Amino acid sequence: MAEGKIRRPRAETPKGFRDYFGAEVTERKAMLDAIAGVYHRYGFEALETSAVETVEALGKFLPDVDRPNEGVFAWQDEDEAWMALRYDLTAPLARVAAQYRNDLPSPYRRYAMGPVWRNEKPGPGRFRQFYQCDADTVGTGSVAADAEICAMLSDALEVVGIPRGDYVVKVNNRKVLNGVMEVAGVLDPSDATRFEAERGIVLRAIDKIDRLGDAGVRALLGEGRKDESGDFTKGAGLSSEQAEVVMGFVSAKRDSGAETVARLRELVGASALGAEGVNELETIAALLDAQGYGPDRIVLDPGVVRGLGYYTGPVFEAELTFEILDEKGRKRQFGSVAGGGRYDDLVKRFTGQAVPATGVSIGVDRLLAALQAKGRVAADTTGPVVVTVMDRDRMADYMSMVADLRNAGIRAEVYLGNPKNFGNQLKYADKRQSPVAVIQGSDEAARGVVVLKDLILGAKIAENATLEEWKDRPAQVETPRGDLVATVRKMLGQ
Amino acid sequence: MAEGKIRRPRAETPKGFRDYFGAEVTERKAMLDAIAGVYHRYGFEALETSAVETVEALGKFLPDVDRPNEGVFAWQDEDEAWMALRYDLTAPLARVAAQYRNDLPSPYRRYAMGPVWRNEKPGPGRFRQFYQCDADTVGTGSVAADAEICAMLSDALEVVGIPRGDYVVKVNNRKVLNGVMEVAGVLDPSDATRFEAERGIVLRAIDKIDRLGDAGVRALLGEGRKDESGDFTKGAGLSSEQAEVVMGFVSAKRDSGAETVARLRELVGASALGAEGVNELETIAALLDAQGYGPDRIVLDPGVVRGLGYYTGPVFEAELTFEILDEKGRKRQFGSVAGGGRYDDLVKRFTGQAVPATGVSIGVDRLLAALQAKGRVAADTTGPVVVTVMDRDRMADYMSMVADLRNAGIRAEVYLGNPKNFGNQLKYADKRQSPVAVIQGSDEAARGVVVLKDLILGAKIAENATLEEWKDRPAQVETPRGDLVATVRKMLGQ
Repeated sequence: MAEGKIRRPRAETPKGFRDYFGAEVTERKAMLDAIAGVYHRYGFEALETSAVETVEALGKFLPDVDRPNEGVFAWQDEDEAWMALRYDLTAPLARVAAQYRNDLPSPYRRYAMGPVWRNEKPGPGRFRQFYQCDADTVGTGSVAADAEICAMLSDALEVVGIPRGDYVVKVNNRKVLNGVMEVAGVLDPSDATRFEAERGIVLRAIDKIDRLGDAGVRALLGEGRKDESGDFTKGAGLSSEQAEVVMGFVSAKRDSGAETVARLRELVGASALGAEGVNELETIAALLDAQGYGPDRIVLDPGVVRGLGYYTGPVFEAELTFEILDEKGRKRQFGSVAGGGRYDDLVKRFTGQAVPATGVSIGVDRLLAALQAKGRVAADTTGPVVVTVMDRDRMADYMSMVADLRNAGIRAEVYLGNPKNFGNQLKYADKRQSPVAVIQGSDEAARGVVVLKDLILGAKIAENATLEEWKDRPAQVETPRGDLVATVRKMLGQ
Repeated sequence: MAEGKIRRPRAETPKGFRDYFGAEVTERKAMLDAIAGVYHRYGFEALETSAVETVEALGKFLPDVDRPNEGVFAWQDEDEAWMALRYDLTAPLARVAAQYRNDLPSPYRRYAMGPVWRNEKPGPGRFRQFYQCDADTVGTGSVAADAEICAMLSDALEVVGIPRGDYVVKVNNRKVLNGVMEVAGVLDPSDATRFEAERGIVLRAIDKIDRLGDAGVRALLGEGRKDESGDFTKGAGLSSEQAEVVMGFVSAKRDSGAETVARLRELVGASALGAEGVNELETIAALLDAQGYGPDRIVLDPGVVRGLGYYTGPVFEAELTFEILDEKGRKRQFGSVAGGGRYDDLVKRFTGQAVPATGVSIGVDRLLAALQAKGRVAADTTGPVVVTVMDRDRMADYMSMVADLRNAGIRAEVYLGNPKNFGNQLKYADKRQSPVAVIQGSDEAARGVVVLKDLILGAKIAENATLEEWKDRPAQVETPRGDLVATVRKMLGQ
């Protein structure tokens, strides 16, 4: 075949996706395993649904409400039905809770971890496939369930290596916000749909307060806001008096939970819904206190609302409070790594019957980045012991050495490339972050010994050294073939 | 809203997919973790590519060659380019090996585990999403790499709980088969494309010998075969003399590896390619022997060819040799749980340069089913300790108990459903496979004690018992609240 005429496929990761190598995989796995251990200890059961759901079952609950139809990867199956990749782990849970409602324990505590897919414009650090790690309790309206989720989130952050004091779990309640909206005149208790669009804008405006600041949020509560690029976002159209009421809510946090509760009681005034929300917050704080989760870990903070439209009661968010340097070298707080809340209507979509639920989702990639920033990742990046090949004909001897090492539990491999150039073998061992190289030429073989080279000491110089120079360096020992395993073990400090 | 008018979404797992609950998830995970440990010890590095690839990069290498275009789930992205879910882990590896060829170590040993998707007709036990667990070495033509994969596969089976003697790894070589085809006159060394279709039919016929038997394979080598449903499959059109040569190959296995090699040497006659294949098999056997992998674990078996068209050299298959009962109650061997081989041309598709590679894929679901059949799954299915709720107003006390248990590392939960009906709480604990229930009514609270109920003993009777009957059963102790953790620990045998 004439090679020149062949149109070769491009070897490219699809746009917006990425590949994870070695420690990138194992570090994330170690973190997820630790979190799963906490979820399990709290009595949550694993659930793994498939990546594919019917578009009908998924519904339109993407956070980015401006483009609800474009958010998923979808296709038609052989029956013309639309299928899609899941965009989160909550929608599949709602489907499962409805489908198996007669078989599952109730309440049903479940955790799930795995990739989700969003058909969104990729950006720096923003990928179309990413991991989520969720825990939810379905089938109870008790705020004890919300309190438990907050406590568990706190434990999960600590178990992966975020020390107490470096994070805070903030708790708020949508009912309180709705009570405040009632006071502000953008919620009519007798007609839930009235002002719905305005409330959505208010919600998303408050959710952006960290990025937009007070003035930006006020603009969005009023007529609207023009961003730096000149794009105009329509506001909720509140009067400045109405906006004042909402902004009072956002800044209602006081030094203690009791004071915050008292302030919120003032703000919700005569709103029955608002009063209910304040009572729930008070109960959550009391339940957490009884379990030993004080304000050093979990605090009431009315500034947290979460952007998702489907939350109906308590909402929570975990923020990391230590500073990192952003891409422009400026100090800033790390920010949110997890969030969740109560969503009482998602299962009802399927069954028509109210099934209250609450849960949390940990942003796996952000939390992992935080652990890396703190130097807290646990994965061992040490490479394998490399058995080099001096005599091509004695491959069986080298493989016998590597088998001895592996059988002793030592990570090891034989060099499988072209053995002609010994320098390439050393470069390979270096690239593999190998701690020890094993060498046996014909001379050593005749004497029944092997040479062991400490590569952690020698790595830098080795790259351009000849075999003889390299063997002369001090970090090298000769040992009988029969002592190979014991000597390597000693060099590895095992 | 008038509920009757709402068209509710159906709560259904999409056709051909399934959900995995609790131990179904954790048992598989434990198995994959154990296998990953072996792969890691052999020096293999984790790789996780995304679920999505360009259709162009995936190519058409599905095992089901009869419907190459229908095998994947595909859609067009915003640039009209076709994207698809990966159908195996080998095609993404070939893409990665080409894309990062300047950065990866060479040879590159990598392992990968995760779901793959096939757009095929679902059937009993046949799903459109399933797990694979692969290990491959890219960038070496040395059969030492093939031998290593076989040894590693053997270790992987043993580490998950398949004892030696209950499995065998069979090794063969496509070059030997091609040498035999040359002798039979269906391979022309000077024109590789001549008789290509015939050879494909021969390959797939031999691959089905376990199911079709000798006669069925002979029919497919000749004119063709009508199956039970009356469907006719066209044969390779070989004469009976030609078919005899091929069948001689399939049954060339002898009592020892050396005898099998000798028999194969006879069969390939003057074919240079065939002789090369026989020499490779001989080398593999010698290398395995040097590592201590004798015929009790790994054997040469010319009956194994593997159906995939892209293999170019050694092929291997792990079979479980113990018997199970099939769906009709008949005894049969469990059969194949893993397979692989050398594929030297998959990376070349992208780069034009030859990059030899070899690897294995473990059929995760089949292997897990085998472990379950052998009673070898490790996952702990014990449920959590359940703290029951006697007084709704004292939820804080119950949550404090559950926090004490969890902080001591004991899996525990508080009952979060409606506490009114105590029987429901016991049913819940039963459904959760809870080992111990904690009870504290107002009387016990006043006395500063809790009642602990051993549910492993009591589960059966508890379902219809009243609280008083239930508390009277012997498997029950009263303990001071301060001794809760210690007493529970004792009851759990910790």
